[in-house]
Amino acid sequence: MNDWLDEIKWDSDGLVPAIAQDHLTGRVLMMAWMNREALALTASEQRAIYWSRSRAKLWRKGEESGHVQKLHELRLDCDADVIILKVEQLGGIACHTGRESCFYRVFENGGWKTVDAVIKDPQSIYQKGNGHD
Amino acid sequence: MNDWLDEIKWDSDGLVPAIAQDHLTGRVLMMAWMNREALALTASEQRAIYWSRSRAKLWRKGEESGHVQKLHELRLDCDADVIILKVEQLGGIACHTGRESCFYRVFENGGWKTVDAVIKDPQSIYQKGNGHD
Repeated sequence: MNDWLDEIKWDSDGLVPAIAQDHLTGRVLMMAWMNREALALTASEQRAIYWSRSRAKLWRKGEESGHVQKLHELRLDCDADVIILKVEQLGGIACHTGRESCFYRVFENGGWKTVDAVIKDPQSIYQKGNGHD
Repeated sequence: MNDWLDEIKWDSDGLVPAIAQDHLTGRVLMMAWMNREALALTASEQRAIYWSRSRAKLWRKGEESGHVQKLHELRLDCDADVIILKVEQLGGIACHTGRESCFYRVFENGGWKTVDAVIKDPQSIYQKGNGHD
């Protein structure tokens, strides 16, 4: 009964990119990666669960910070190799830098300029200090 | 003077994911890949130019269909390994299936359901028939 997972074209590492987008504003909050288990859990638990490539384990977004991403909609692209998650971002912060979105740098005058403010100091978000949940 | 390109964390294939988003509505239109040359050209020509992994060459989006993506803004994420392009999608069609967005399938009742209509028959879009520009 997991035909829908079989339709995904997982890459050679068994992963697909997953784009998290605010379900109301459409702002892209972050992009991370999912393996088959992460996507299955995301659907069943109705919250974003990624695969952390750096830590090589499931990454239950918000498990330390409380900045859980509640799932509103899952979408798949034409090539079946990219996922979109429309989410409600609890706490209003997706980025480990304490910003709403990870995409806080804009290309201007030949360089990357930070244009979005930090909402909350990361040190107060991540008590245990891994700084990336 | 290409320090901004050196800041990107290209993957082991020299690529980064690039998310194209409508600059007005925020709808995510597609995700493709860029190498260093593609990103440099995107910035200099102010239109989306990707790296086609399947064809192993630069992919000047819209070169056959006319469905060019005019660049309005480039953003970079916290890890410097994902790009967002805010674009104006000429013709209102980003997907090679003739739809506005490649993300036209929604997860419903345990399966992927197509929810967005085809705007234009792909056969009339791609005269030469490569069907993916």
